[in-house]
Formats: sequence, C-alpha cells, structure tokens
Amino acid sequence: MARPERVDGIDTLVQALRRLPGVGIKSAQRMAFHLLQHDRGGAEQLSQALHHAVQSMHHCQRCHTFTEAEICAVCSDPQRDAAKLCVVETPADQAALERTGAYQGLYFVLMGKLSPLDGIGPAEIGLGQLLERACDGTVQEVILATNFTAEGEATAHVIGEALKARGLRVTRLARGVPVGSELEYVDLGTIAHALVDRR
Amino acid sequence: MARPERVDGIDTLVQALRRLPGVGIKSAQRMAFHLLQHDRGGAEQLSQALHHAVQSMHHCQRCHTFTEAEICAVCSDPQRDAAKLCVVETPADQAALERTGAYQGLYFVLMGKLSPLDGIGPAEIGLGQLLERACDGTVQEVILATNFTAEGEATAHVIGEALKARGLRVTRLARGVPVGSELEYVDLGTIAHALVDRR
Repeated sequence: MARPERVDGIDTLVQALRRLPGVGIKSAQRMAFHLLQHDRGGAEQLSQALHHAVQSMHHCQRCHTFTEAEICAVCSDPQRDAAKLCVVETPADQAALERTGAYQGLYFVLMGKLSPLDGIGPAEIGLGQLLERACDGTVQEVILATNFTAEGEATAHVIGEALKARGLRVTRLARGVPVGSELEYVDLGTIAHALVDRR
Repeated sequence: MARPERVDGIDTLVQALRRLPGVGIKSAQRMAFHLLQHDRGGAEQLSQALHHAVQSMHHCQRCHTFTEAEICAVCSDPQRDAAKLCVVETPADQAALERTGAYQGLYFVLMGKLSPLDGIGPAEIGLGQLLERACDGTVQEVILATNFTAEGEATAHVIGEALKARGLRVTRLARGVPVGSELEYVDLGTIAHALVDRR
C-alpha cells in the first residue's frame, strides 16, 4: 500500500504562495505557517484583496495603469497639466514620481519594458497607443522616465525616436549624482554622466 | 479640494501582501504588479488556497500539526511506530524529517518555540498536551528535534526535564559536522560539539 500523502491541505497553499515573484519553497512554507498559526485574519484579508483585484482591476483607457474605473484618478483629474505626458515602466514607478509632488502632468504606463529575448516588443508595451495618446494635440512634451537600466534605456530610445519623428518635444529624466551621496562612493558611470550633463 | 487618492484598488492588495512575513512595501508592490499584469490565474489560485486553508485547516488532535481531518495522515497511519514520538517546532521541520525517510515514528508539533520575551511560554507550545500524549503508555522514547538555536535548545531543555521527571526516555538529535562539509569551513561550536559527542 502506498503511503498516504503527508502534507495534505497546507501543500496547496505553499504551492500557491510560490507563484509570488521571489518566493521559493522555504519562504512559502514560512508564510503558510505564519498565516495559519499567527494571522488567519491577514490570510482571509489577502484572499479577498487578491480576488477583488483580479475581478475589478483593469487598465486605464488613457494611461494603461491599473484602476477600477474606466479612466484612472490621475487621468480624470482636471487640475493636472495635460500638456505634459510622463512615460514610466510600472505603476510603482508612477507612485514614486507622485510621492515627490514635483510633477503635475499626466502619465503613460508601459506596464513593462522592451525585452526582445522575453518576447516583449513595441506592441506589448503599447507603443501604438502611446503614439496615438501623445499626438492628441494637447500633449506638448513627453518626459521619458523609464528606468536607467540597459532595457529601460533601450525602451526610452525606441519611444523617443518614434515621438521625435512625429515632431513632439521629448525629454529624459536627468542622470546624475543622487542627492545626499558622496562622490567617492558613486559609481564611475554615474559620475561620467553627471559631468557630461553638467549645467 | 483635496486631491483624490492616487493608488485606489491596488493599494489594498499591496497592504494585504505586506501581511506576509518578510515582505516589505517594495516586494509587495512588485508582487501585486506581477500578479495583475502577468499571472491573474495565479492570483485567483492563491486567493482560493488562502480562503480554503483558513476555513478548513486546524490542528491535529494528537500531534497539533495542520490538517483538514480530525487526526492527521501521519497520526492515523497504522504502519507508523507508535513507541517513538518526535518533537519538532513547525510543520516545515516535520516535513524535513519526513523527506529523509529515516523516521517511522509519530510526531508532536509544538507550533512554535519557547520565547518568554514574545509571551510564548509552556502553555502556548502545548507542553501539557505533549506530556499527556507522551505518557499514554505506548510512547517509549521521545526524540527532541527542536532547532539548534538558543530558543530551540532552551525549548528542548524544558521539555526534556519535564519528560524525564515522568520517567520517559528522552533523546536529542545528534549535533555534529554536516554531511559533505570540510572541517576548515565548519564553525568552531559545531566542531567542539562533534568532538564531545564523538562515537
């Protein structure tokens, strides 16, 4: 007779937790144990938040960020400066820019970055919609705020070329030495860029 | 007029994900984005697994591990050696022992370890139930397999003393040099213990 399965129900939960990015088998076991032993309220809350998000969150028709409405709160805010359009990779990047309080314009969220090896090309990041959105006659400046990684830079380059070909003003977030940092600890590439972009 | 809230629904999900141990705001944002953008099936599956686990998982009446039945699969297996009782801290530790295939006895899962500063005393780890379970007349040897950390050792000591006072045979997992390791890279405490416990 084969031995009965030892781990029964908890294994289903562990396997489901492993679907989270950056969570391996050990972390998933620790999470499952913590939730069941110490925080069942949190587990139920997470279950409902996941279900609700999957059911109700979709892409804003104007900027592609996640929202429960047709048009997200930022896009539908009449106080925002519709002449500026900031292009970011993810909603988390958008949230970081919002927290600065230094930007009053609108956004376009790519929901990713160009990554040909993963099959993510211009269509997957919505380049067509971005061009349409940027050429609506109201937008006067497109600020490229993709990450300063190899893929983020490539994405900014491709988008920038396409927008310039349509006669739009395209800018990029400044590269340079981070506020509060000491030169001796800043990497050479950053210092070189800060020198070139000096003002 | 106050600005409308920028993050709406996704923020609820991010806050819920932060209830997971070891998950901060950045990881939670990354998880929420990944699930909504790339793995909605996984999110729904996790939602259901959490709900199901919270509703149906409770403690085995004999060994305290998580199970959907009254008595877990291990405790209700007549093939297991009921004369041996292995005491572990968590179901993950139990699973590690089970994977070795080297143990055929039964378990008692403390669901934690003694930690007076966190308010976890003998009652919280079910010492009373363990003593009752170990003194049922069938158990002849209790193997203490709590972790080899300060708290795990203290827990083993307290349980061991209580069991010995009731005349039971108490053993502890062997400490020593891990299989496959080279002495020069093993910490001094481990080597010292391996010397003392040499056979």
